[in-house]
Amino acid sequence: MQLNNASLEQLRSWETELSAAYESIKAKKLNLDLTRGKPSSEQLDLSDALDGILQGNYTAADGTDTRNYGGLDGLPEAKQLGAHIMGVEPANILVGGSSSLTLMFQVALTAYLFGLKDAASAWKNEPDVKFLCPVPGYDRHFTICEQLGIKMVTVPMTATGPDMDKVESMIKADASIKGIWCVPKYSNPTGVVYSNEAVDRIAKLGLIASANFRVFWDNAYSVHDLIDHAPELSSILDACRRNGTEDSVIQFASTSKITQAGAGVAFIAASAANLTGIKKALSACTIGPDKVNQIRHTRFLPDRTALMNHMKKHANLLNPRFEAVLTALNNAFAGTDLGAWEKPVGGYFVSFDTRNNCAKETVRLAAEAGVKLTPAGATFPYGKDPEDRNIRIAPSVPTVPEVVGAMEVFVTCVKLASVRNAIAKLA
Amino acid sequence: MQLNNASLEQLRSWETELSAAYESIKAKKLNLDLTRGKPSSEQLDLSDALDGILQGNYTAADGTDTRNYGGLDGLPEAKQLGAHIMGVEPANILVGGSSSLTLMFQVALTAYLFGLKDAASAWKNEPDVKFLCPVPGYDRHFTICEQLGIKMVTVPMTATGPDMDKVESMIKADASIKGIWCVPKYSNPTGVVYSNEAVDRIAKLGLIASANFRVFWDNAYSVHDLIDHAPELSSILDACRRNGTEDSVIQFASTSKITQAGAGVAFIAASAANLTGIKKALSACTIGPDKVNQIRHTRFLPDRTALMNHMKKHANLLNPRFEAVLTALNNAFAGTDLGAWEKPVGGYFVSFDTRNNCAKETVRLAAEAGVKLTPAGATFPYGKDPEDRNIRIAPSVPTVPEVVGAMEVFVTCVKLASVRNAIAKLA
Repeated sequence: MQLNNASLEQLRSWETELSAAYESIKAKKLNLDLTRGKPSSEQLDLSDALDGILQGNYTAADGTDTRNYGGLDGLPEAKQLGAHIMGVEPANILVGGSSSLTLMFQVALTAYLFGLKDAASAWKNEPDVKFLCPVPGYDRHFTICEQLGIKMVTVPMTATGPDMDKVESMIKADASIKGIWCVPKYSNPTGVVYSNEAVDRIAKLGLIASANFRVFWDNAYSVHDLIDHAPELSSILDACRRNGTEDSVIQFASTSKITQAGAGVAFIAASAANLTGIKKALSACTIGPDKVNQIRHTRFLPDRTALMNHMKKHANLLNPRFEAVLTALNNAFAGTDLGAWEKPVGGYFVSFDTRNNCAKETVRLAAEAGVKLTPAGATFPYGKDPEDRNIRIAPSVPTVPEVVGAMEVFVTCVKLASVRNAIAKLA
Repeated sequence: MQLNNASLEQLRSWETELSAAYESIKAKKLNLDLTRGKPSSEQLDLSDALDGILQGNYTAADGTDTRNYGGLDGLPEAKQLGAHIMGVEPANILVGGSSSLTLMFQVALTAYLFGLKDAASAWKNEPDVKFLCPVPGYDRHFTICEQLGIKMVTVPMTATGPDMDKVESMIKADASIKGIWCVPKYSNPTGVVYSNEAVDRIAKLGLIASANFRVFWDNAYSVHDLIDHAPELSSILDACRRNGTEDSVIQFASTSKITQAGAGVAFIAASAANLTGIKKALSACTIGPDKVNQIRHTRFLPDRTALMNHMKKHANLLNPRFEAVLTALNNAFAGTDLGAWEKPVGGYFVSFDTRNNCAKETVRLAAEAGVKLTPAGATFPYGKDPEDRNIRIAPSVPTVPEVVGAMEVFVTCVKLASVRNAIAKLA
């Protein structure tokens, strides 16, 4: 199917066929959900040994009684776990509560209101504060900016990371740009792994950006590979060290999609100066995070081998679901002008770009046929996809047959929305 | 010992005796700690069954899989546990992470930066924001104000709660007062339980205060009784309802001193309007709190009877320690003019007022003799006790013989500091 040069007659014939197909799908009264990046029950089962793992031994390796107050930046063994996940040294790790999103908010708040370095460095002192947002991106990042009144400026994602020419020229031209959101491995939602060049150029942004600029490096899928010889993300911290820009990047991760979602352990990796600033602000709002949950996790995932073996079990559950999505997309759209997508080898999403002005209608049609999709526009700041193209597909929760069924609906809805849109343009 | 009318000669003779006693104590090279209100290991042992209590069943009563994302305001059964602890209805409860201090910071931040009602209601829009701080009080409350740039104004604590005549007249006179910190039961550090009259007058503050005024009601010790027929704190929410001021009070509590300190479950109790405002702000920084820990706690403390029986076990461990403190104070200072204290029947502290200008020196002398006390001044905003009198004694962690030993040092140090101070004034 090629719509660009199709006649109105041809389009109308396709529309008739697709409408019939759509009506027969609707008659099935499906109830399927491809909305959010959550682990499935089977994935969660993999970590059920967490409860009871302590066998009455609540004492950390250094003798800390994890049942009592204290330990603002985490137990040594929990820092080691974070270091395994994030590929840094334990000294660069701060262990937080159970949510990396909360840590991102706290760091953004600290940078905005209190200053990561000192009160004078607070972004609120500036006349204007902006963040670069590679799009499509993660809606909850955008919400943090919106909540703090930080203006968002979009920059396109490419197959190797954000469009770095644009990122660099925008930062050089505008001193009010104080940060950029990055999901460097299996980017949410495109699944892209940033190239070594992209990582290197991001590490150098601290050399051209205005004061107090910070890269928010959300490494949410650092060990979430779907294949054996997964692409390696090069170390942003090493690149920063080479360029003397250690303070320009703050990294985040959690075990939410490793053990239990929302009940795991979250981490920050940062320079000594940034850790000092973050800890100072944190000390005003907590005596310390839940250390009992920290040792539960370190006993469950005692070393890097245990971690990677555990992640393989996740991959075994996720792989058939991703294959179902990619096979459906390939069968329906390879060689057509109806859509474009990346083929992720990790993470939680497949990102699909429809023809212009077809995403919202596709999502609406799918919902009417019993398949919930993330609202179109959610992957853009303020929920506004200017070309109305991007749809995020999250296949982790449904069973494989459910994914197959949902993709049948999805494919039909994309085609129907596209054909109707093409007709409207010609008619 | 009465210092007020003692002759210089008498004082010097006491000084000689006390110096000798102090030197012999110092020679013992003690290493004891009465600083922070933490549970002892034995107290923490009482909740060791938490780990493993789920027996593989991670499903909440309403079918929620607690291992997955979601549930911003908590599981229904966790709200019920919070309701038991705080004496309110589950509908008024929000269940947070593991720290009530964090919830207090988040609510203060929300009121300050985002507005609990709407953006126009944010305290930051005011030329000046002040909080009333009954003193002595809790240092971590003061730190939250300091962090947010909220000015603190002290008001004296009495044996029945804050001096309400002063509180009311200050609020009437100054529209920039936007809040007051209260620890209404077993107040930190005086151990006072607010009288029914005090609770009622606090519930009426919303009628005389300027817009967006909030009482921060930190009910940290709501079920932490040391005696069987403990004084009852009357319900602030009921009092507010009678006066149409439900939105003027936000209550906080946690299980930190019920189960595991820093690894328990924390709660807010508030009006529907306040809960809406709080949830709106929370939704920008978290997908939801750790629900696995919530069901651990609800399985461990399934009803009010289980909760109160559990608290009796804490009382049995705490009581001899409090008795050791109160006996030492009574033996040394009853009928003297060297100090004053309340006799708490719950909570974690005994608050001792020395003669003016003797607290710092007492703490210094005790430290030199191997007994760590909370720094003098810590119970006042900005760490400044204007009369240098208040010392907070926290006896929960040491063993009973250790408390006895520490109090022997304490008593000697108070006497020595007092006598030396009296000599300096006369000489």
